[in-house]
Amino acid sequence: MPRWEPDGAERLETAAFDLFAEQGFDRTTVAEIAERAGLTPRTFFNHFADKREVLFGLSAEFRQRVVRGIAECPPATPPLDAAVHALQAALDAMFEHRRAAVTRRFAIVEANPELRERELSKIADLADAVEAALRARGHDTDTAGFAADAATAVQRRAMQKWTRTADGPPLRELVADALGALRAAVAPAAP
Amino acid sequence: MPRWEPDGAERLETAAFDLFAEQGFDRTTVAEIAERAGLTPRTFFNHFADKREVLFGLSAEFRQRVVRGIAECPPATPPLDAAVHALQAALDAMFEHRRAAVTRRFAIVEANPELRERELSKIADLADAVEAALRARGHDTDTAGFAADAATAVQRRAMQKWTRTADGPPLRELVADALGALRAAVAPAAP
Repeated sequence: MPRWEPDGAERLETAAFDLFAEQGFDRTTVAEIAERAGLTPRTFFNHFADKREVLFGLSAEFRQRVVRGIAECPPATPPLDAAVHALQAALDAMFEHRRAAVTRRFAIVEANPELRERELSKIADLADAVEAALRARGHDTDTAGFAADAATAVQRRAMQKWTRTADGPPLRELVADALGALRAAVAPAAP
Repeated sequence: MPRWEPDGAERLETAAFDLFAEQGFDRTTVAEIAERAGLTPRTFFNHFADKREVLFGLSAEFRQRVVRGIAECPPATPPLDAAVHALQAALDAMFEHRRAAVTRRFAIVEANPELRERELSKIADLADAVEAALRARGHDTDTAGFAADAATAVQRRAMQKWTRTADGPPLRELVADALGALRAAVAPAAP
């Protein structure tokens, strides 16, 4: 896992994002990233396994926080509410204070089909982890699975909205709004 | 797009699925597939652009059918119902009669991380197309987007269940059940 000392990982991240945006992810090397950051490739590899991990290195920690957050919800919390609550806490802790960097990351991932596929795969991993955490609370497969799909959809669309303005509402508020929008969108028509 | 004459595409598909299952997708060549099918590589390329298209060649046609099906629903049909109705019709037309082949395809895709990412990417393309088709019916972005996410989640989980038995209920019935399960899973707790 990357560590976020301002003089290490964060400088490397900024340099990497600059280069990915300027010349594309594929054409950027670790040596260039280290040079731009004024550091050595060796320092790069102290923080990241490869250049892709600059973009995806936080996903495992995020997933673990969400799983822990679900386990800590009171037993009576309904499954989707537990998942969304845990997502909000993890987003607060890891992303709320880094909107500019997350926004840049989004643009880089969106611009590259391979990175986009990787991002979808990480979201699927997150959904699998949420499903397992909900099953561990006694929910059946269908309930846990669909609550997990819904929670990750809510998060994904809330984050998209959050990265579209520099000073809009905080992420947890957009997540709450998105949950309401999802529930309205899938509710059966009134008889 | 592949065509499904029994003496062409279908024989090649069977040969390809046999080889992918026996020796893995990565280690299988087009020449081997053609040879196993008793055909020439040239015939292979009349049907498929490459070996990956044997697995993913139907996704564009499926997407087009779903989009058309949504457009043809009566204007008053709620968005998620329109999407699910269109999915059921497309599944009936393209997959219901091919359970064994679809099941084999699933196992091959699941066994290979790169194919799994590609599959997720095709599902995301489908969700984007459903969202666009729902917006064209006048639904706002949130409603169209979440209805699209829900519809593709319903389809994915129904298909997983469908491929688990050789003679269980038809796909459209599993899709209807899954829609009910999703609605129950995301509904707010009764006050």
